[in-house]
Amino acid sequence: MTKPLQIGIIGAGRIGAVHATNLATRIAGAEVTAISDIRLEAAQRCARDLGIPEVYDDPEPVLTHPGIDALLICSSTDTHANLVERAAAAGKHIFCEKPIDLDLARVDQVLKAVDRAGVTFMVGFNRRFDHNFRRVRELVQAGAVGTPQLLHIISRDPAPPPAEYVAVSGGIFLDMTIHDFDMARYLMGCEVTELYVEGGVMVDPAIGEAGDIDTALTVLRFENGAIGTIDNSRKAVYGYDQRVEVFGSAGAVRTENDYPNTAIVSDSRSIRTDLPLNFFMDRYTESYVTELNDFVTCIREGTQPPTTGHDGRMAILMGYAARRSYAEHRPVKLDEIAR
Amino acid sequence: MTKPLQIGIIGAGRIGAVHATNLATRIAGAEVTAISDIRLEAAQRCARDLGIPEVYDDPEPVLTHPGIDALLICSSTDTHANLVERAAAAGKHIFCEKPIDLDLARVDQVLKAVDRAGVTFMVGFNRRFDHNFRRVRELVQAGAVGTPQLLHIISRDPAPPPAEYVAVSGGIFLDMTIHDFDMARYLMGCEVTELYVEGGVMVDPAIGEAGDIDTALTVLRFENGAIGTIDNSRKAVYGYDQRVEVFGSAGAVRTENDYPNTAIVSDSRSIRTDLPLNFFMDRYTESYVTELNDFVTCIREGTQPPTTGHDGRMAILMGYAARRSYAEHRPVKLDEIAR
Amino acid sequence: MTKPLQIGIIGAGRIGAVHATNLATRIAGAEVTAISDIRLEAAQRCARDLGIPEVYDDPEPVLTHPGIDALLICSSTDTHANLVERAAAAGKHIFCEKPIDLDLARVDQVLKAVDRAGVTFMVGFNRRFDHNFRRVRELVQAGAVGTPQLLHIISRDPAPPPAEYVAVSGGIFLDMTIHDFDMARYLMGCEVTELYVEGGVMVDPAIGEAGDIDTALTVLRFENGAIGTIDNSRKAVYGYDQRVEVFGSAGAVRTENDYPNTAIVSDSRSIRTDLPLNFFMDRYTESYVTELNDFVTCIREGTQPPTTGHDGRMAILMGYAARRSYAEHRPVKLDEIAR
Amino acid sequence: MTKPLQIGIIGAGRIGAVHATNLATRIAGAEVTAISDIRLEAAQRCARDLGIPEVYDDPEPVLTHPGIDALLICSSTDTHANLVERAAAAGKHIFCEKPIDLDLARVDQVLKAVDRAGVTFMVGFNRRFDHNFRRVRELVQAGAVGTPQLLHIISRDPAPPPAEYVAVSGGIFLDMTIHDFDMARYLMGCEVTELYVEGGVMVDPAIGEAGDIDTALTVLRFENGAIGTIDNSRKAVYGYDQRVEVFGSAGAVRTENDYPNTAIVSDSRSIRTDLPLNFFMDRYTESYVTELNDFVTCIREGTQPPTTGHDGRMAILMGYAARRSYAEHRPVKLDEIAR
Repeated sequence: MTKPLQIGIIGAGRIGAVHATNLATRIAGAEVTAISDIRLEAAQRCARDLGIPEVYDDPEPVLTHPGIDALLICSSTDTHANLVERAAAAGKHIFCEKPIDLDLARVDQVLKAVDRAGVTFMVGFNRRFDHNFRRVRELVQAGAVGTPQLLHIISRDPAPPPAEYVAVSGGIFLDMTIHDFDMARYLMGCEVTELYVEGGVMVDPAIGEAGDIDTALTVLRFENGAIGTIDNSRKAVYGYDQRVEVFGSAGAVRTENDYPNTAIVSDSRSIRTDLPLNFFMDRYTESYVTELNDFVTCIREGTQPPTTGHDGRMAILMGYAARRSYAEHRPVKLDEIAR
Repeated sequence: MTKPLQIGIIGAGRIGAVHATNLATRIAGAEVTAISDIRLEAAQRCARDLGIPEVYDDPEPVLTHPGIDALLICSSTDTHANLVERAAAAGKHIFCEKPIDLDLARVDQVLKAVDRAGVTFMVGFNRRFDHNFRRVRELVQAGAVGTPQLLHIISRDPAPPPAEYVAVSGGIFLDMTIHDFDMARYLMGCEVTELYVEGGVMVDPAIGEAGDIDTALTVLRFENGAIGTIDNSRKAVYGYDQRVEVFGSAGAVRTENDYPNTAIVSDSRSIRTDLPLNFFMDRYTESYVTELNDFVTCIREGTQPPTTGHDGRMAILMGYAARRSYAEHRPVKLDEIAR
Repeated sequence: MTKPLQIGIIGAGRIGAVHATNLATRIAGAEVTAISDIRLEAAQRCARDLGIPEVYDDPEPVLTHPGIDALLICSSTDTHANLVERAAAAGKHIFCEKPIDLDLARVDQVLKAVDRAGVTFMVGFNRRFDHNFRRVRELVQAGAVGTPQLLHIISRDPAPPPAEYVAVSGGIFLDMTIHDFDMARYLMGCEVTELYVEGGVMVDPAIGEAGDIDTALTVLRFENGAIGTIDNSRKAVYGYDQRVEVFGSAGAVRTENDYPNTAIVSDSRSIRTDLPLNFFMDRYTESYVTELNDFVTCIREGTQPPTTGHDGRMAILMGYAARRSYAEHRPVKLDEIAR
Repeated sequence: MTKPLQIGIIGAGRIGAVHATNLATRIAGAEVTAISDIRLEAAQRCARDLGIPEVYDDPEPVLTHPGIDALLICSSTDTHANLVERAAAAGKHIFCEKPIDLDLARVDQVLKAVDRAGVTFMVGFNRRFDHNFRRVRELVQAGAVGTPQLLHIISRDPAPPPAEYVAVSGGIFLDMTIHDFDMARYLMGCEVTELYVEGGVMVDPAIGEAGDIDTALTVLRFENGAIGTIDNSRKAVYGYDQRVEVFGSAGAVRTENDYPNTAIVSDSRSIRTDLPLNFFMDRYTESYVTELNDFVTCIREGTQPPTTGHDGRMAILMGYAARRSYAEHRPVKLDEIAR
């Protein structure tokens, strides 16, 4: 076995800690050399639990660490763009949590910097690595549904975020639907050319007061002529609802939610099961492992990352188009945004 | 038991024969007195099999038959409007297959005639009487999902009709989606105010050459602010696909397809079931019985019919709006049409 | 079309009325000529509703009616044997509800009489005609599971019968399990050679006081070496529970219960459906139609009936063996009984 | 945090490696100090991959290691008894893979030794820690089914072991059914008093030649009067089949298999899913983590282990009874064996 990939992590919050743990315990061929967080104690907790040698309250020493091959950018969204540019300049391979930035022009700058540096750049669309959606993609690619014609994505959160979060989130399309925009492109294997949004504030008036909506129905037109929908709600009382369906000329594939167990209770009132896994940390646990494993593998083997800067950019572009469609109440071509 | 309701049937084709058989064998309180069809032998076959006393190749003697209380209009669409008007003038109660007419202005005339006559008028939206959709409606009305917010209707045929049928059908929205327009209003219990259509020719170029489309995705905005989608395809290779989902503030209800049996086969390749019931005559068999039973009951008991002329008119109005939305590639308010 | 088969019905109770209705409304090629019941009003009600010309409070005129081709014996169990013998003597084809008789020696006499007369004789094991079990049989016969090795039958009633019924029922094995004994032979396509019973009184002490048990687990050994179980309870609070599974060298087939609809409700407590169809009149509605249709067809076409006197006898023989196994707490070979 | 529990592992084969990996990566509060295997390279591989400091080809230094608090006995079955006795003598807490020994008298000696030593002793019935079965147990204990009356366990392997393995396995009851014997006691929360076995060689004649059977149906009688069945086959071509059902006075609970994904494919042939998880290393992955976690916790907190020496002994006792029942073709009381 060759020398393990040396990894630095910037940001030891929820998702940073998940990646650190997975790297330390479940992913072969990589080691975490250093971790930083502006809240030092968060980084220290990770380091202590996982045996990470170096801890900082500043990303600088991690970015420029001579022993580090690759960086995971897990800090807050507003820091992503600068950190990616600096990591690229330092010649590090980069895994960046979504979104790259909320400003599309800034995203373009960042991607240029990454291109110039020639480093591997992967964006954290973890749902692509989920066992269910990956199987749908495989089946679609293998021709199980023939030519894809219709796509449906149901993507509903169990509960809305606090209004203060909503205010800085970039809005539902860049914060929540962004995952589904990527999923749509992933499952159909082609680009979206136009979209149309219906939506409103149905869950929490505070979200409306923060200038956002909490329920959205997005219709997608793909370049191959197929049509898709994304159904988003900030609140499904029965838990995290994550399902897809692809329909085509030779059949259809669809997925159900994941459940904590398969027990079925029959009594004098109903036939029933427990609720689905409640939120993304439970639902997508394994997808985070697979995602990081693929990142490590693509660096070690010199292959293309499964989610690229282009993927990160397209999801943001679609978010822009969705905002405009909702604001102007009309279908919007992606070309209008890209111009 | 009081005297059975005496019923005349105009049109002994597929659906006329179904109603005749159900009335003869499975519905109490009614008898078929006479049946007519311009193809006399079709009417004769029904009459012979079911013991119907009078048979005609002309609707006239049925329309004006002094012993007949109620008429079933099961002839071709282009004859509906005239027959309903004449039946109303003759003081008969009327059950009319959908659509009332493909011309909205003509529909309005017909409904006025029916109103003036004061007879019971019911439109054949048989899916409202289906065990699955009726249960969804009950649950929604009972508050099982709280305030409805999102609706999805999947409605896909197993195979497209012949191009010559398509040419005279009035187009996918008035021929196929019309059922789903009614279903949307039925399940949500409120009116649609606006809709937007994406669609195309994905199944059969001949349908496109006939000036129609075969795949359509319709987004509905309801007056209570809820959003819905209708997914139509003329060809689902696995059979007739008829599912709905209503999502709301307190939960969701959804239905699966109906299957010919519950057998599950496990072998070295897969875990699988047979295909769903293949088309409407199998899938909706029982709904036709319930529908006619309700028609007979509402006449005998003097109650309102479960599907009214207004329901018939609204589905056509929505079809007009859908055509305009598709043609002009923009959301269309129903008000635009009604004006 | 040739002249309809003329049918007489003896017994206008629950099951007699079902058969009469099905013959009158849903089965082609047969007519009910006469119906009798010792409670005359029951026969009269049927006759009036269905237009049956002749009504009697005595089976005699039906048995000897010169215009009648076939008889349905739907009276109480203790009358079956005599009525079948007299019907056979009169040269009528016979459909007899199960069991032929609770006394095995008497069954043998009856079958001899039927054989001598050379008439068609069919026993009412309606579950063979159920859509689910028929599909399992087809799949097993077609080799979908390879060589059958294990069979499981779950057969639980929603509620126990009154203790007074239990006292004259012949016991759980001849009253309830008898259907499952036949199902086991039907699904596996071969004879049972030995069985073993575990059981007890778990539902209602009154059943124990009446000398019966209400819960039984029967293990079957088939002549091809396969093993089966039958799980019987007189009380499943969630409704009628009727499922089977056949496992073999190349796979398995199993069935789920039938439900009144496919609606699935998700709320903050659970994901759930309504209860299954509650009892045999709902669950097996269609099987009664198919069963009688097959009876009419086999007479008209001169083919073998799908359930024979041998089938009726074997189910009773297995009931005897089950009683002995339970009483003596040991496996019992069917040969021991037959001797 | 207090000092981690120091653990020694004896046996670095498949299951030893699983426990070592789980302890190293997914279980807090414990560290693996040493690992031994008579095939040194197996122990070395584990040690290298997981950073275990000490490696031996002899259990001796692990058994007597002064720094070790607890031992995992993961070596071959014939070594368990001696190793447990010596570990107990050395005052170590013990986790022992099932079975403790194939000889019941020897098991009794071992349990006495453990008792005298006063150490924690846990037997590796990992299925008790499975998400599905644990949920059934919880529901049964919580009264969801009322008084349990009937139990069914389906437990089928995807493929038979080699005949040479069968020859030394102790036979199907001590090798395979032993897990289900424990599951039966776990789910019902009470002891078995009697059992009856039907079985045979249906899968592989070589198994019969080795003196064993490959298909078994075991009927259990519980001390509370309930009845259960265990369905075992050495070969289910569709994969590992592990399902249970508990039926009682107030309802039923049952589980389905676990699947690699929830994708459902519909095409012109069938509606289908992928096969279930294929064998125990995939199906029970998480149960091994939970099991060891519970072992560590019960030592650290001084609580009773969830699976005791009594549990280990009872499963073997039931295996003896099953062998006798099959050999003598009669129900066998567990008392007969215990005497």
